[in-house]
Amino acid sequence: MAHITLPEGIPGIRSLAMYRPDTGQPLYALAQALLRAGSPDSTLINAERELIAAFVSKQNRTDFCMNSHAAAARYLYADQREVVDQTLDDTSAAPISAKLKALLAIADHVQADARTVSVDLVAAAHDKGATDGDIHDTVLIAASFCMYNRYVDGLATLTPTDPATYADMGEMLATKGYVYINEPQTA
Amino acid sequence: MAHITLPEGIPGIRSLAMYRPDTGQPLYALAQALLRAGSPDSTLINAERELIAAFVSKQNRTDFCMNSHAAAARYLYADQREVVDQTLDDTSAAPISAKLKALLAIADHVQADARTVSVDLVAAAHDKGATDGDIHDTVLIAASFCMYNRYVDGLATLTPTDPATYADMGEMLATKGYVYINEPQTA
Repeated sequence: MAHITLPEGIPGIRSLAMYRPDTGQPLYALAQALLRAGSPDSTLINAERELIAAFVSKQNRTDFCMNSHAAAARYLYADQREVVDQTLDDTSAAPISAKLKALLAIADHVQADARTVSVDLVAAAHDKGATDGDIHDTVLIAASFCMYNRYVDGLATLTPTDPATYADMGEMLATKGYVYINEPQTA
Repeated sequence: MAHITLPEGIPGIRSLAMYRPDTGQPLYALAQALLRAGSPDSTLINAERELIAAFVSKQNRTDFCMNSHAAAARYLYADQREVVDQTLDDTSAAPISAKLKALLAIADHVQADARTVSVDLVAAAHDKGATDGDIHDTVLIAASFCMYNRYVDGLATLTPTDPATYADMGEMLATKGYVYINEPQTA
């Protein structure tokens, strides 16, 4: 049960956005900007943005965000959807670009202690083709999921357990994006 | 030096908001909603909101956010401004309400691992007079500063060292709030 009285039967972040709309709106606007658009010079595709979000949520052990963003990433990777679980299971062995691996290493440091993002880690990402915008967007996606994860966990919001629920959420997030609607939704 | 090319001489979060305005805008809107307004039933005053932000930033060891929000809290506490440093130095001995101490204990758990915010911690806050809105706002302030702190640190933004700079920032934040302006500002 959640720590405060939230709309019943609504999972995760959506129940919180309904609880307080004036914070819900910028939280959704931020997710839409970060996961469905990019810095002008960014080379990251939306599937990769969702994968970074799922990766950080896994590090924070926030099942709701990890499952919903992994599902969105699988939908967006389409016929390469197995990349998502391969990356979450073992990043170093996953069939993703060296650039994305270098950016995930930065995301990993942001999650653990952002002061440890070093000049060398950033130079390694640049060497593999990452732009300044890719580095910016990776750091802010990782930082923002350290917020979304804590918000969802700190108030003990509803976390569905049925994988089919997340598959539906993933499709909705992939096709409609992060649209703030102050009424019951499933994701 | 910052890890990416940012507007020169602009400290902390403002340089990042100028770098990418479409994420800067919701980040400022979120701060304004959380630190200058509250859930409908919340009893927290703005000085206490700024103090929670400074407290979490201290836990994350992000000097820029700790110093700027401590300065805003000092300005808002006015003739009780010594409360800010007393709380940051030793929360248990500080001359603040039992309700605020219980909320800071929740903020502390959100910062370290939000999954450890327990039913007992929430009940203790309720017992001391905290409303659902106070608990919600405390969790989201703490979670959001785990983002702002990582964003500022992960990109190695400019951190002024002169205390007078922070005093000016604190007055500006206290009197004008978190207004997104896409041009050079000092806070």
